[in-house]
Amino acid sequence: MNGTLFQWLEAQLESLKEQNLYKPLVVMETPSEARITVNGKKGVINLSSNNYLGLANHPKVKEAAIRAIERWGAGAGAVRPIIGTMSLHMELERRLAAFKHVEAALVFQSGFTANAGVIPTITDAEDVILTDELNHASIIDGVRLSKAQRKIYKHLDMNALEEALKESQGAKKRLIITDGVFSMDGDVAPLKEIVELAERYDAAVMVDDAHGSGVMGGGRGTAYHYGVHERIDIQLGTLSKAVGVMGGYIAGSARLIDWLTQRARPFLFSTAQPPAVVAAVLAAIELMETDSSLTERLWENTRYWKEGLRKLGFDTGVSVTPITPVMVGDEGRAQQLQRGLFEEGVMALAIVYPTVAKGKARVRTMPSAMHSKADLDDALMAFEKVGKRLGII
Amino acid sequence: MNGTLFQWLEAQLESLKEQNLYKPLVVMETPSEARITVNGKKGVINLSSNNYLGLANHPKVKEAAIRAIERWGAGAGAVRPIIGTMSLHMELERRLAAFKHVEAALVFQSGFTANAGVIPTITDAEDVILTDELNHASIIDGVRLSKAQRKIYKHLDMNALEEALKESQGAKKRLIITDGVFSMDGDVAPLKEIVELAERYDAAVMVDDAHGSGVMGGGRGTAYHYGVHERIDIQLGTLSKAVGVMGGYIAGSARLIDWLTQRARPFLFSTAQPPAVVAAVLAAIELMETDSSLTERLWENTRYWKEGLRKLGFDTGVSVTPITPVMVGDEGRAQQLQRGLFEEGVMALAIVYPTVAKGKARVRTMPSAMHSKADLDDALMAFEKVGKRLGII
Repeated sequence: MNGTLFQWLEAQLESLKEQNLYKPLVVMETPSEARITVNGKKGVINLSSNNYLGLANHPKVKEAAIRAIERWGAGAGAVRPIIGTMSLHMELERRLAAFKHVEAALVFQSGFTANAGVIPTITDAEDVILTDELNHASIIDGVRLSKAQRKIYKHLDMNALEEALKESQGAKKRLIITDGVFSMDGDVAPLKEIVELAERYDAAVMVDDAHGSGVMGGGRGTAYHYGVHERIDIQLGTLSKAVGVMGGYIAGSARLIDWLTQRARPFLFSTAQPPAVVAAVLAAIELMETDSSLTERLWENTRYWKEGLRKLGFDTGVSVTPITPVMVGDEGRAQQLQRGLFEEGVMALAIVYPTVAKGKARVRTMPSAMHSKADLDDALMAFEKVGKRLGII
Repeated sequence: MNGTLFQWLEAQLESLKEQNLYKPLVVMETPSEARITVNGKKGVINLSSNNYLGLANHPKVKEAAIRAIERWGAGAGAVRPIIGTMSLHMELERRLAAFKHVEAALVFQSGFTANAGVIPTITDAEDVILTDELNHASIIDGVRLSKAQRKIYKHLDMNALEEALKESQGAKKRLIITDGVFSMDGDVAPLKEIVELAERYDAAVMVDDAHGSGVMGGGRGTAYHYGVHERIDIQLGTLSKAVGVMGGYIAGSARLIDWLTQRARPFLFSTAQPPAVVAAVLAAIELMETDSSLTERLWENTRYWKEGLRKLGFDTGVSVTPITPVMVGDEGRAQQLQRGLFEEGVMALAIVYPTVAKGKARVRTMPSAMHSKADLDDALMAFEKVGKRLGII
């Protein structure tokens, strides 16, 4: 054990605790559902999961996973480019491409590694990446792995993006990257305007639709919602949030996917997704394609939830999606709200610096298709009680 | 669709094909076993998977995965630090720590992201990372994400490592990173010597034991094999190779793991492993702890396989582990050997530049506990036939 490292770790942890930034893990003892047992407390209303459609514990999804284990085993046994590609993986990728109305798709172990897989693999030192300042951490890490120059533009600001495009005309290739749905505020990128700028200035566009997959465009994502899916070069989707299981994927042209199979490092160097995961995702896509009631219920609950909070006097920020921040501002008070809600049987996490800017602390809520009106009403009562006590409303 | 990107992709793919470096995916239609159906060909002897112990399709591992889906669902529904930590995840991490004889462990979505999770999270600009020149791609990417200075030392060369330690005495912290078992040559890092140097020069040590997990030290890894597990700060293990499922983990001090739960980006920003994966890994660890016949069989097959190849006159390089390269040298001839073997019903991949140095092309073979003597004898006959025809032996 190296003393220098050990003391450094101790100092870091102490510093986090002093700043009130240390967050112990909370432990769930039930599946991901509308009401869960968490840290021993039963019946807690779950407003914190990304299981937007309730697919993580859907009987058909579970059944497909179980059948795949029986047929294919518990693991794939190798990386995809060696001998880890089962025909099941190919079936999922064909299905995802069809679902997204694009030529091809490639599955990664997570949305995080999909970003790390695609961004540095299609850009090099002569290129420029133009990236929204509030893009997700995994985009930031993907960009960091690239040798391309980086230009960060102001959140959703099309004038700033155009300016950055004008300034980077000397680049060999240019790539605009934006979240579809932004995970902390629940706002949406103006993809039509972005695509138009990209076409005018000869730039490619990549949309990270982690929180749009299964939510926007009837499940097909934000690009489909805006009708621009054929004009976007790269779509990243998650299989872990609305789709309910695990993984991420890149959807786009056959050439793009072909190149990624040859050179995307997390694809080349990580073991293939287990059969249970692949089959569960296939069943989830099937449900999304055949049963629109899931997305309809999600959006109905979303409207009901936002209206309820606003009527109580809460500020839900700029969200137009199920991700509903309850803006608080002060870090300490956001954490008080989280604790008070938990005492009242509601699980909704405070999001504080460094995940969001200092002074922009919030409690983030995500209604889902799983919640009943009674669940949401109970949660609103808890928000009212604790919000009044803390002087937030 | 952006024309500039499209043309660039076309040119890259053409260039790969011209250089004979384009590798189409091969597709498996069976579970990962000793004999598989691949690209429609039945009964092919599988010497390419990392399923060293046959756990990927073990009945007890499958059963545990199925029970977990019934109890916990197909997905965890959120990232670990929000509401994706099930008590099942905590159980696995306690179990892994006990298995490795260390204080604590933390599971990531892959070995690749475990590297990306730990390296930049414990080093900063005032630090120096000392890294073996043949370390795995995921270490290279992890180091690239760190702001620390990097010193690459000659493969396994303790004089070079000591020189690098002397040259970096001004650093705030120093971290030596080495693979335990090197994936392309099957050789092993001299961990005793590395630990002694580290202690003399006040450096921390990290061992990436992707190929040592489940293989070395009765399954506990290369550090345990050498009896230095208590003197190593960070061990990385995989859950996807010998363990048979998916994922990676970091094992070490409680302080290290605590810090990673707070700041390791792939841990913070990726959905938790699905219950089926976690439970399957738990069952695999249980098997490794209670049934030593699996690792014994792996090593018996390894000895039998290496001896067989050497008797035929093949050069198996410097390997002392199941990873057994059949050294060829010339890139074209290695690819001919791969094709000839496949015609004879053996799956073993050519590894060529840029994965290994030019002129160091090889066909990599990995016997496992799954293979019968008959499987290995059949494979040796194929090697003899094709090796003679190509003039390699």
